Amino acid sequence: MSNRVHLITLGVKDMTVSRAYYEAMGWVISPISMDEMTFYQAGDQVLGLYLQDALNHDTNLDAPKPGGITLGMNMQSREEVDATYAQALKAGASELKKPLEMPWGGYTGYVADPDGHPWEFSHVAQLVPNGDGALILPEKL
Amino acid sequence: MSNRVHLITLGVKDMTVSRAYYEAMGWVISPISMDEMTFYQAGDQVLGLYLQDALNHDTNLDAPKPGGITLGMNMQSREEVDATYAQALKAGASELKKPLEMPWGGYTGYVADPDGHPWEFSHVAQLVPNGDGALILPEKL
Repeated sequence: MSNRVHLITLGVKDMTVSRAYYEAMGWVISPISMDEMTFYQAGDQVLGLYLQDALNHDTNLDAPKPGGITLGMNMQSREEVDATYAQALKAGASELKKPLEMPWGGYTGYVADPDGHPWEFSHVAQLVPNGDGALILPEKL
Repeated sequence: MSNRVHLITLGVKDMTVSRAYYEAMGWVISPISMDEMTFYQAGDQVLGLYLQDALNHDTNLDAPKPGGITLGMNMQSREEVDATYAQALKAGASELKKPLEMPWGGYTGYVADPDGHPWEFSHVAQLVPNGDGALILPEKL
């Protein structure tokens, strides 16, 4: 079985603020969520929100500065990228880079969630999710 | 269709070093990889390595400090956690926290990859991936 990431955990400062943001982005909270940890089913994987102080304690790391990891959602069209970008700003995200055509042909924009975690919304003709929502790499570009 | 993360991008300083690390951890490089971007199929999603300078340019962010996002791999047993933890250190990861029993019952450890990105290796009885490798949240804990 190939390697995979089962759980993505985002450190958050204020769980109420972050839950409201992700709810406004269409994520459906799992009933097993608790005060300091929120769970979302995300296809075959889980997205979690966890209080940053607790995360620092668990990882033995100091306060982070976002930008080393980005999370991308690939869209069916440029219009969907624009709509999702607008939805994110309305939901409370900060603008990082407005969607634009990249030199390699993709159309992509970045927002920061309430804790500064960068999310990428993209349309890339060769990397469109299939009917099951899976992103399967082609053999060649 | 539920929301999901299609692409996780990790910023890296030295692509050769990072590729060697992920190869030693069992990730299989996609033939569409290029000099500044490496792709791995990870179940229904894609894990990418991208030069951090280019990532900063794309996101409009300054140099990051890891720890705001952790990526977790859930294991079938504590023995598998210990073995994967040892494998990571041998492959060039740094120790963040040795696997230990958490107050909530899980058994979990953290390493930092060559660029400092924290990876969590866990065994949690209620959160074991199924036969397809998917992590599906239970209705209740």
